[in-house]
Amino acid sequence: MDHVAGKPIDPRVTEAMIPYMKSFYGNAGSIHSYGRRPREAIGEARSKVARLVKAERKETITFTSGATESNNMAIKGAANRNAHRGKHLITTRIEHMSVLNPFKYLKTKGFEVTFLPVDKYGTVDIMSLHESLTEKTTLVSVAYANDEIGTIQPIKEISKLVHSKGALLHVNATVANGQVPIDVKEDGIDLLTLSSNDMYGPKGVGALYVRDGVRIEPLIHGGGQEKGLRSGSENVPGIMGFGKAAELANIEMKNENSRLIILRDKLIKDILTSVPYSFLNGHPTKRLPDNVAVRFSFIEGEAILLSLDSMGIAASSGSACTAKTLQPSHVLLATGLKPEEAHGSLLLTMGKQNTEEEATYIIEVIPSIVKRLRAMSPLTPKELRE
Amino acid sequence: MDHVAGKPIDPRVTEAMIPYMKSFYGNAGSIHSYGRRPREAIGEARSKVARLVKAERKETITFTSGATESNNMAIKGAANRNAHRGKHLITTRIEHMSVLNPFKYLKTKGFEVTFLPVDKYGTVDIMSLHESLTEKTTLVSVAYANDEIGTIQPIKEISKLVHSKGALLHVNATVANGQVPIDVKEDGIDLLTLSSNDMYGPKGVGALYVRDGVRIEPLIHGGGQEKGLRSGSENVPGIMGFGKAAELANIEMKNENSRLIILRDKLIKDILTSVPYSFLNGHPTKRLPDNVAVRFSFIEGEAILLSLDSMGIAASSGSACTAKTLQPSHVLLATGLKPEEAHGSLLLTMGKQNTEEEATYIIEVIPSIVKRLRAMSPLTPKELRE
Repeated sequence: MDHVAGKPIDPRVTEAMIPYMKSFYGNAGSIHSYGRRPREAIGEARSKVARLVKAERKETITFTSGATESNNMAIKGAANRNAHRGKHLITTRIEHMSVLNPFKYLKTKGFEVTFLPVDKYGTVDIMSLHESLTEKTTLVSVAYANDEIGTIQPIKEISKLVHSKGALLHVNATVANGQVPIDVKEDGIDLLTLSSNDMYGPKGVGALYVRDGVRIEPLIHGGGQEKGLRSGSENVPGIMGFGKAAELANIEMKNENSRLIILRDKLIKDILTSVPYSFLNGHPTKRLPDNVAVRFSFIEGEAILLSLDSMGIAASSGSACTAKTLQPSHVLLATGLKPEEAHGSLLLTMGKQNTEEEATYIIEVIPSIVKRLRAMSPLTPKELRE
Repeated sequence: MDHVAGKPIDPRVTEAMIPYMKSFYGNAGSIHSYGRRPREAIGEARSKVARLVKAERKETITFTSGATESNNMAIKGAANRNAHRGKHLITTRIEHMSVLNPFKYLKTKGFEVTFLPVDKYGTVDIMSLHESLTEKTTLVSVAYANDEIGTIQPIKEISKLVHSKGALLHVNATVANGQVPIDVKEDGIDLLTLSSNDMYGPKGVGALYVRDGVRIEPLIHGGGQEKGLRSGSENVPGIMGFGKAAELANIEMKNENSRLIILRDKLIKDILTSVPYSFLNGHPTKRLPDNVAVRFSFIEGEAILLSLDSMGIAASSGSACTAKTLQPSHVLLATGLKPEEAHGSLLLTMGKQNTEEEATYIIEVIPSIVKRLRAMSPLTPKELRE
């Protein structure tokens, strides 16, 4: 149950990609007949992705190499393009590294960046946003939902505030897209990062929605593909796969989410009731359908992870992108947890192929794993060692 | 015979990619067992790419989303990282848009850029390079070979000069890689752009070689993948395909090139002898094995292209990246051609699947196509209209 670090490609997506890996090898930019078919196919894929987020025109969707590139392109592109108007930027303390690090980079280039606090559920502090916005603020970047704790942000409310001060709103929808319905116009989003892999599409492809009328500086200059916004020969099979994934998400998202929410709430309730000193991370209701983020006092998430792995259950102790370091998650710390509390976290992210039987199995094994690990931990109080 | 705009993926490459599109969907950065296999596989692919260019260690190879990104990363990354030492950069007038446009962008950011002239064969003018290099020069970027005219540059000679002045040498090997043997140490290359698709690998993946000890600023910041040089979840199937393509190129390049050089020289000789007022573009001997670039007086390359297309022969009138504009190729103009001469150019780029029979067919049809088009052209002298 680890989907935060990579979802399997839907077999129907693979099928949609393979013909473009075999026969239609034209460059989408050239004029002879080998080149024509990919160009039309890219247009159709663009429409499918646009439809998923209710974009006004398919031309507002620019394909990229993935969500990390989209975030870099949106943040650096909007900041640099509007630097003459002001050099103040706002984001939050719980963003993904592919958002935080472009902002940290811009700080070294003379920009001022405010990192907003969040409450104990990981919800952005609207009052702080209100106080931070100035006439020099050109861009605010907030994720639609957080991958580590599942919390969904009040994007519409944030957007109204941001626009009232004349700034642009970038939303990283990486983990939310294909899971929850997004409507760029209703939500008031100017720039939206989309990830293919998070909706069972291939890796190596993503997109950036740029609202009509919004201007940003390109990140990658070259042959002028994607209306000059993102140069480079188009990754045709990847784009085909992304288009198919968006089409499937559009059709299947609603039913799949109802199913996942039932599984999610059962897992959370059963874990919290069967394990003493266990707690939920993130918001109890405003959370991603696939996200079960819990923590257990006195033990390490990493140890639970390895125990589960040996029993055939893949999970995560947080974001895959920080698994290499032993630092406690910056997201969990921002919600007010102490480092030792954060370290006891376990993240289960479910997907299409996860069943009720698997959830039942996890609920069966977790209490004994936690008990065994607590018996070995010097932090465990005596009464729990029995 | 249009391989400049996109080569077909070798079926053996597709086979190497498909398992990673189906089963091994782990994120290469996470720690559980689903994640382990891709990480090892990426390491193997990196070794194969490193071996192709005789890189000192596999860790000098950073995977990107393609050659355009690699060029942007090398040029902006080296320029920005060394801006404290100097803000003068050098490239040539015949580079690909994914090189020229990053330099033009840097000009808007306070850098001074020299665009070196080339001779009538498209060879970089070494004297001009010598005169342009100053103590403020931090980077020189020259393509290994030109995709429109096939000319291969004297990289070793250029490198010695560049290094004698303490600057770095970036080489865009996009069309050359997998076609001609490259040895980064022997050639004296600091930064090398590699393209997967040009060696029958998938699009959407490329690499940048960064010599040990050379420091550049990342283009895409995030989760710290690729040793922090290029963040973003790895495109595992794409990387697997690139690795396989590099492995095959290493084995098959030598024989395939001997075959192509025979085809190339036959095509050039037969076209030039059978069509009056036809000329070779680029260098007669120091040229890519797959490249047949010719021009015909009095007619338009575009018209020849469409005639060939209707007879089942794919070709190009120049670079696919400028096919959308009607501007004459900047490369051909830089070799001293007048716009009307440049417009009559035809580019045939051959590949693995092109046979001697196809070459014979092309030689048969071209004279009559040219004759028919010349009969319709007001520029054609009377004696050729018969």
